[in-house]
Amino acid sequence: MPEQSSPLDVPEGDLFGPHNLPYGVFSTPDRPGERRVGVRIGDHVLDAGAAALALGSPYAQLLAQPDLMALLAAGRTAWRDVRRALTAWVTVPAHRADMEPLLHPLDAVTLHLPYRVADYVDFYASEHHATNVGQIFRPDADAPLTPNWKHLPIGYHGRAGTVVVSGTDVVRPAGQRKAPADPAPVFGPSVKLDIEAEVGFVVGTPSAQGKPVALTDFREHVFGLSLLNDWSARDIQAWEYVPLGPFLGKSFATSVSAWVTPLEALDAARTAPPARDLPLLPYLDDADEDEPGGYDLRISVAVNGHVVAEPPFSTMYWTAAQQLAQMTVNGASLRTGDLFGSGTVSGAEPSQRGCLLELTWNGRDPLELPDGKRTFLEDGDTVTITAWAPGPDGTRVGLGEVSGRVVPTD
Amino acid sequence: MPEQSSPLDVPEGDLFGPHNLPYGVFSTPDRPGERRVGVRIGDHVLDAGAAALALGSPYAQLLAQPDLMALLAAGRTAWRDVRRALTAWVTVPAHRADMEPLLHPLDAVTLHLPYRVADYVDFYASEHHATNVGQIFRPDADAPLTPNWKHLPIGYHGRAGTVVVSGTDVVRPAGQRKAPADPAPVFGPSVKLDIEAEVGFVVGTPSAQGKPVALTDFREHVFGLSLLNDWSARDIQAWEYVPLGPFLGKSFATSVSAWVTPLEALDAARTAPPARDLPLLPYLDDADEDEPGGYDLRISVAVNGHVVAEPPFSTMYWTAAQQLAQMTVNGASLRTGDLFGSGTVSGAEPSQRGCLLELTWNGRDPLELPDGKRTFLEDGDTVTITAWAPGPDGTRVGLGEVSGRVVPTD
Repeated sequence: MPEQSSPLDVPEGDLFGPHNLPYGVFSTPDRPGERRVGVRIGDHVLDAGAAALALGSPYAQLLAQPDLMALLAAGRTAWRDVRRALTAWVTVPAHRADMEPLLHPLDAVTLHLPYRVADYVDFYASEHHATNVGQIFRPDADAPLTPNWKHLPIGYHGRAGTVVVSGTDVVRPAGQRKAPADPAPVFGPSVKLDIEAEVGFVVGTPSAQGKPVALTDFREHVFGLSLLNDWSARDIQAWEYVPLGPFLGKSFATSVSAWVTPLEALDAARTAPPARDLPLLPYLDDADEDEPGGYDLRISVAVNGHVVAEPPFSTMYWTAAQQLAQMTVNGASLRTGDLFGSGTVSGAEPSQRGCLLELTWNGRDPLELPDGKRTFLEDGDTVTITAWAPGPDGTRVGLGEVSGRVVPTD
Repeated sequence: MPEQSSPLDVPEGDLFGPHNLPYGVFSTPDRPGERRVGVRIGDHVLDAGAAALALGSPYAQLLAQPDLMALLAAGRTAWRDVRRALTAWVTVPAHRADMEPLLHPLDAVTLHLPYRVADYVDFYASEHHATNVGQIFRPDADAPLTPNWKHLPIGYHGRAGTVVVSGTDVVRPAGQRKAPADPAPVFGPSVKLDIEAEVGFVVGTPSAQGKPVALTDFREHVFGLSLLNDWSARDIQAWEYVPLGPFLGKSFATSVSAWVTPLEALDAARTAPPARDLPLLPYLDDADEDEPGGYDLRISVAVNGHVVAEPPFSTMYWTAAQQLAQMTVNGASLRTGDLFGSGTVSGAEPSQRGCLLELTWNGRDPLELPDGKRTFLEDGDTVTITAWAPGPDGTRVGLGEVSGRVVPTD
């Protein structure tokens, strides 16, 4: 085979070159019940467990696994070492003959949820999003942001059991809704089914109950990130959420990318978060941190292939490190597989809003799509979220897409 | 050994006689790493897996396990059959010689969390509790109950990873709090640490995403119940909970009993819930159900051995079956090990309130305990919740206690 035809010869500029190497879990049609850890390279998946075994690597115990749990639990030093090894396996010419038979075209594999989600927490960290939602949902309030918003990252627990991998159909939820003028609630399929374009962070190293995790220990605990769509039924949410927060309006499905990008692939994307308007309590104060806490991720949201928004993650007021510190400051423990979402990513511009609630201002200003107007999602709509980040040496690091199609209530 | 000395000769009137038989998981000092399924009988634990193996029972595959997950997943017919078998093993004289060596005194074993908690949801189903809390937290509102309260059981997701078994110390959480008059939030150990006396329901049979579970299928999915203490830091909660609900004020710890009482042991305790003030949508309407949806559980809450409240579970407005129907009506799936709490159980009388927030009216009216006044919990306080229910033929069915001691912030 001529060398230039190797799948390992990823074209320059490819978002999934050897500078990226996100992790996932795949199976192949010939062995459909056998889930394997894979690493994406270009438009192929390397069977990482088989590669480790073929090379007699000690990391086989972390990679020859049906999911990412062993790798996630192994801790930061192991994450670094495994990544170094994988980088060598896909770049060093001497390994090429061993690796090529272990590559599978992406379109020939099935991708699975790569880890067992332990607890799922969702934050609310975009000032632009929170301000817009406040104006829409609480128009009579004194201010769109609640008084606590700039003092702590607001979050809540979601349903871990309904986190699904990209590509899974999402059944339109039914539930109660009640417009203010309605005399009583009505029941039926949601008529305000929405997207929430988010970034989800995946915890690897657990922590003990009663022991908060400091801001500076973020990288010891968080392995990587994925794009996330926190599907939301706005009509169900609006009726149910006072006083205990979102429940059925969110719990029917949360989609995550099949690919987890290790934080090490995103070092060049680190950026300072927006200036803080109010002084922060010490456990949240990141003004003097050595490493900036934000990530410059350029997100794109498409409905049926038509881009409807380009939210910039760099505008998020609260960083993932602050969210982790907040989540544990009361002594709550972390488990391997904990997932926390950033909250909807929305920038300052109307074209940067990460949900239809904001993009259409709760349906008042429909979007014009090639296949018709949209206020909220219609059955059959496919939502796809993609992103890239600045990588080393002028490269771009792609995040694995998260995609899902809306199907009618059963 | 004279027959009357057998631990299987449980005294008449014992709350844990052969009519009860709750399930738990235990280990013994000689084999501390080996967790085993146990069934409580009187003041002993029967090693249920060893019993099944000794008798060549086909249920050994469900009982000779390190936790209850296999039994929970086995479904209602198996639950009934296993219970029948266990009842025979502890009551039929022919089995006595086989069983006696497999009994361990309760005070000689360590009890463990008996199942892996999948998702944890907490409801808010006591009208008395919700009314009192509304008056305390939202004194300026038009009405103490939010407009949705009598149309649907309000709930939210809690943190599954911090559910701990009875007997585990609870570290006082730290966090932000801000009284309305304070210029800015302050940080420190909670000064309003509270009890929430609840009943937790444990899901056995899972359900598919996109498929709601009907009211009438409650018994197909829910295996049993346990007493639960949803520890709450009222000062943290009050500052954080608008607009997305309770988070750090609850997520530091939730204690559950080591014993899961199967619903079959509580058939004589079923009772009709309070009359409904408003018509319910069909998926929640239990007026025509064959079996009443409430449970007559007589709860007692003690601080350092002194009873501070006796909340009657029969007064709960929303039943567990309605909660399950609500939780899944949007298509959210159930997993084996899902746990949902009733919310604080409070009756109409001041002595029936299941939390200190209500009992002391947010600290205004301290309780007089033998060891001093209490507004909220102090370090070193031990909270113990017990309960019994009417059983068959005039017996009483005891629920396993849930107990925990408050220790200082680390």
